[in-house]
Amino acid sequence: MEFTPNSLLSFAESLWPINRSITGAGVRETLSIIKGVLPNLQIHQVETGTKVFDWEIPKEWVLRDAYIVTPKGKKICDISQSNLHLIGYSHAFKGKMPLPMLQEHLYSLPDQPDAIPYITSYYEPRWGFCIADEERKLLESGDYEVLIDSDHINGFLNYGELIIPGDSTEEIFLSTYICHPSMANNEISGPTVTTFIAKWLSELPKLKYTYRVVFIPETIGSLTYLSKNLNTLKKNVIAGFNISCIGDERAYSFLPSRHGNTISDQVAKHVLRYLDPNFVQYTWQDRGSDERQYCAPGVDLPIASIMRTKYGAYPEYHTSLDKLGTVVTSKGLYGGFKAIKKAIEILETNRNPLVTVLGEPQMGKRGLRPTLSTKELMPSIRLMMDVLSYSDGTNSILDIAEKCLTQYSEVFDICTTLSDLNLIQFEN
Amino acid sequence: MEFTPNSLLSFAESLWPINRSITGAGVRETLSIIKGVLPNLQIHQVETGTKVFDWEIPKEWVLRDAYIVTPKGKKICDISQSNLHLIGYSHAFKGKMPLPMLQEHLYSLPDQPDAIPYITSYYEPRWGFCIADEERKLLESGDYEVLIDSDHINGFLNYGELIIPGDSTEEIFLSTYICHPSMANNEISGPTVTTFIAKWLSELPKLKYTYRVVFIPETIGSLTYLSKNLNTLKKNVIAGFNISCIGDERAYSFLPSRHGNTISDQVAKHVLRYLDPNFVQYTWQDRGSDERQYCAPGVDLPIASIMRTKYGAYPEYHTSLDKLGTVVTSKGLYGGFKAIKKAIEILETNRNPLVTVLGEPQMGKRGLRPTLSTKELMPSIRLMMDVLSYSDGTNSILDIAEKCLTQYSEVFDICTTLSDLNLIQFEN
Amino acid sequence: MEFTPNSLLSFAESLWPINRSITGAGVRETLSIIKGVLPNLQIHQVETGTKVFDWEIPKEWVLRDAYIVTPKGKKICDISQSNLHLIGYSHAFKGKMPLPMLQEHLYSLPDQPDAIPYITSYYEPRWGFCIADEERKLLESGDYEVLIDSDHINGFLNYGELIIPGDSTEEIFLSTYICHPSMANNEISGPTVTTFIAKWLSELPKLKYTYRVVFIPETIGSLTYLSKNLNTLKKNVIAGFNISCIGDERAYSFLPSRHGNTISDQVAKHVLRYLDPNFVQYTWQDRGSDERQYCAPGVDLPIASIMRTKYGAYPEYHTSLDKLGTVVTSKGLYGGFKAIKKAIEILETNRNPLVTVLGEPQMGKRGLRPTLSTKELMPSIRLMMDVLSYSDGTNSILDIAEKCLTQYSEVFDICTTLSDLNLIQFEN
Repeated sequence: MEFTPNSLLSFAESLWPINRSITGAGVRETLSIIKGVLPNLQIHQVETGTKVFDWEIPKEWVLRDAYIVTPKGKKICDISQSNLHLIGYSHAFKGKMPLPMLQEHLYSLPDQPDAIPYITSYYEPRWGFCIADEERKLLESGDYEVLIDSDHINGFLNYGELIIPGDSTEEIFLSTYICHPSMANNEISGPTVTTFIAKWLSELPKLKYTYRVVFIPETIGSLTYLSKNLNTLKKNVIAGFNISCIGDERAYSFLPSRHGNTISDQVAKHVLRYLDPNFVQYTWQDRGSDERQYCAPGVDLPIASIMRTKYGAYPEYHTSLDKLGTVVTSKGLYGGFKAIKKAIEILETNRNPLVTVLGEPQMGKRGLRPTLSTKELMPSIRLMMDVLSYSDGTNSILDIAEKCLTQYSEVFDICTTLSDLNLIQFEN
Repeated sequence: MEFTPNSLLSFAESLWPINRSITGAGVRETLSIIKGVLPNLQIHQVETGTKVFDWEIPKEWVLRDAYIVTPKGKKICDISQSNLHLIGYSHAFKGKMPLPMLQEHLYSLPDQPDAIPYITSYYEPRWGFCIADEERKLLESGDYEVLIDSDHINGFLNYGELIIPGDSTEEIFLSTYICHPSMANNEISGPTVTTFIAKWLSELPKLKYTYRVVFIPETIGSLTYLSKNLNTLKKNVIAGFNISCIGDERAYSFLPSRHGNTISDQVAKHVLRYLDPNFVQYTWQDRGSDERQYCAPGVDLPIASIMRTKYGAYPEYHTSLDKLGTVVTSKGLYGGFKAIKKAIEILETNRNPLVTVLGEPQMGKRGLRPTLSTKELMPSIRLMMDVLSYSDGTNSILDIAEKCLTQYSEVFDICTTLSDLNLIQFEN
Repeated sequence: MEFTPNSLLSFAESLWPINRSITGAGVRETLSIIKGVLPNLQIHQVETGTKVFDWEIPKEWVLRDAYIVTPKGKKICDISQSNLHLIGYSHAFKGKMPLPMLQEHLYSLPDQPDAIPYITSYYEPRWGFCIADEERKLLESGDYEVLIDSDHINGFLNYGELIIPGDSTEEIFLSTYICHPSMANNEISGPTVTTFIAKWLSELPKLKYTYRVVFIPETIGSLTYLSKNLNTLKKNVIAGFNISCIGDERAYSFLPSRHGNTISDQVAKHVLRYLDPNFVQYTWQDRGSDERQYCAPGVDLPIASIMRTKYGAYPEYHTSLDKLGTVVTSKGLYGGFKAIKKAIEILETNRNPLVTVLGEPQMGKRGLRPTLSTKELMPSIRLMMDVLSYSDGTNSILDIAEKCLTQYSEVFDICTTLSDLNLIQFEN
């Protein structure tokens, strides 16, 4: 597997057709594809009925077939055409009924007549079908045959976990979810980018921090993971990101941690500001993914979200229109990958420089300042002098970059030069 | 006595005719009327000549009669017509004098020709009359007879104090003044609203805090009260309000405590924001009532002011035009009553919620979230999730309401629901 | 010497012709003129080759003569005409060369054709001449004779230091530089104003603080001074100013200390706000004089800059156009003198007042408030009551002036009145 924008899209395509739910075969199939790229991925299982905080692991949903046959004999709402046609977690049903009775089990979006909505009913037994509103309007009267061949069985909730060891026991935590059926931005983009980030990290010769990467069902999965690892996470995790909706080209977005001022928040905002000065800044009250659990009171992990276009903020969200190729693109995925990669590079290299000399060092004798003193000082030299001036041990490289309204990499490069000259040392 | 806007105005009317000054019969008569509604009111007296901090209790002013007779025999500036006609605390005088000499003892407002100004001279012996400028202009030349039948005698400064016990020894302190003659907003509105608030509190079955309500002459009275109760007040008072100018309909106003960030300030601003988004925010430098004493350095009580139109900020202020019916109305008084009541209700019920579960609770199984998961979350559910998310023990209900830009009562109701479900408990 | 704007300009004129560099006769001659006004000035010397932090004291530059003779025999770039003609610290040279070869050693400013630029090469051996661009354009082809009769010898770096003792061992530190040849605002204004400030301080009967005033070469001189006095300075200096570019009339400017919130910063901004509401506020990143050393990490002295038009911010900067009479004027110098003097007066008198009575004092009995209480309170009385209200021991006179949006002197005068009446005492 090579790192090209296209390889991201190809991998996303391999995840597309699987009919995922919060438990069951879809999750396992997805994890198996990811393990193909990340051989060290550990796949865990937790039994149906296990208590996780205020919740309980539900039964597995086994779905063999589901469709409707119209009075004229046409097969519609066939899950082999789109796995969004059936309400997620529907119980089994077989029967014949007139259109008015069927209508009570149909869901469509009048405002988006060509979209099949995505609907689930995990915690109340139900059956129902989702259909494009324009198709629903054409249904003739008469009797419809309905078939849902499904079971709810005792089984497992599965998730994948990859630990990539670094020099420190301090950890960066990355989490993405694998529980929605065929939707591109609000599902497949997350595990795709996260898989490639994990692969990139695995191949680096040296890491400062240990990385903990999890592929989990949203909500019940993150709660399960927290319930099994809370103490370790609270002890070790110093930063992290929830990775979701990271594959379209239309925007970059940031959603803060609950406390809003962690290093994850600072890094995410810095990265996005330089990728796209118009990136969207959400607040904690706009949250909607697993940061709800990771940042809950008493959990309080420093987890922020770097996204492209956020869940709920684009019209195709939670419908069959959230597709690969149209919504999610090579370029969109690659932009998301770059943003997370850049954030991690900053976390890995950010340190507090401290000047080793009192007063300004003599830059001229080191060839770092023109020996001819004229009216003006070049901006690059001025920036170097500013970096030295802020290198008092209390500011990190990132802090200095923000004080100087400069990109992290510029200040980092200057610090490398200054460190090579023994003009600064690092406090941490 | 029933709680209707009209009963507030009726009570105000009963206080109107009394010729109050900082000491004397007018204060006692006023306290007696208030005690008719609040039987537990204690009436205290402090002797003339007693030192209170940098001040001294003055003599009582006894006023029997005062008027002027014009050359043509007409009686003018007769205190039986308006008790503002005589300069407050005027010494006795009887004599005949030509108009030019009388003019030196007349006070009027050329910019408000129909208003009798309110003027006092407590700390320098003087005599004089206040008169509408339009009437003054008509005075004919000739000799005028002047009579002021008054005395300054050793006596007492009086004030009323009501303690309404609550579960806690911590106190809410309410103070209003009773030392001006017949003026409506800048005098009568304060004791009227305060009397009704005290009555409402007295009849509540249960109070968290103890309430200390005082009816005092402004400045010398609050200084006297402080000098006798400073240690108790500093130990027990956790919040409070100075209640003044609270009876007109034209505005709601807020004046902060000296420190500006007490719970009284936070509560007052929250209440007023929801009563009137355009409420007027004054600064400490706009102060002018007993908060000057309660917040003085070394006293430092957490006392803010909730007002309708502030003293000095309306044209009728300190003139005979500050009348019941025109300036002060039923609706104006009732709005002031509601504001103070609401502030007290918040103080009584504000606590710090703490979630009892880790991660988000499962709201669906408690019927608090639709079991069908579709594209959008209802705002009411979103607010409940926000409240849970901020319930980390560091935020009060009021803090959460402000973070969510929501009224206190909405968050309070949600906390009640959540507490009934054992999803939160209260830290205090 | 009298304190008139003209005496400042006369003194500046006496410093004008001297050909200063960072070391050598020019510095000594300048110090000798200053010592004429300040007899207690100590003149120190540090040997060539001495290490000062990351730097080393350079050799002295001895310059006897320098000029060019054109093919037609005209003497140009003659240092007896302008000491800016020769690149500062040029090594000796004698020779004949054609114009193209000479051009490589000529420096001019095409955008300022009538200006001779000021250029130095302290840390790389070079020779060269500076010339007005309009003159350079007229140079005919042919052979030019070049003479630079100079030496670099082991010698000393000199600086002047004046300690003016006060009651406290705590110090105010004033620093100015004496290392540029004939330029008015960016050289001569600094030592001129500083000399007059030091003289004024020396003649005061009583000082609260000890004053440390230094006249040094920029950069290498401040580094030298720090290297010899660092511990004393860090222990004693509680405020101070770098005095530079303080002689023109076009602006007042402020440049903060590195931390930005020292008493020096607060005082400087207050003084400038009342001298000129449009004063220019620079940031630490605009720095360029000895505050670079005084505020460096590990040095961290509380040194701010009060300037007229800042170095680099006016077109004549570092050219022969930065002249006395045109750029620097009597009025400009006197304005700079007043700003520094005012800042020192505030530092000398600023204290924390604390009221001695509880509650408001009775101002009427002290004649500080009208005994007739009418509708409005005079602003001057209101300010006095505000001062009392903020006199809680935590606010300084300057803090109170800023809270009241009032000039320091007004609040100081009120505090003097209140202190005379024993209504406040000072905490420090």
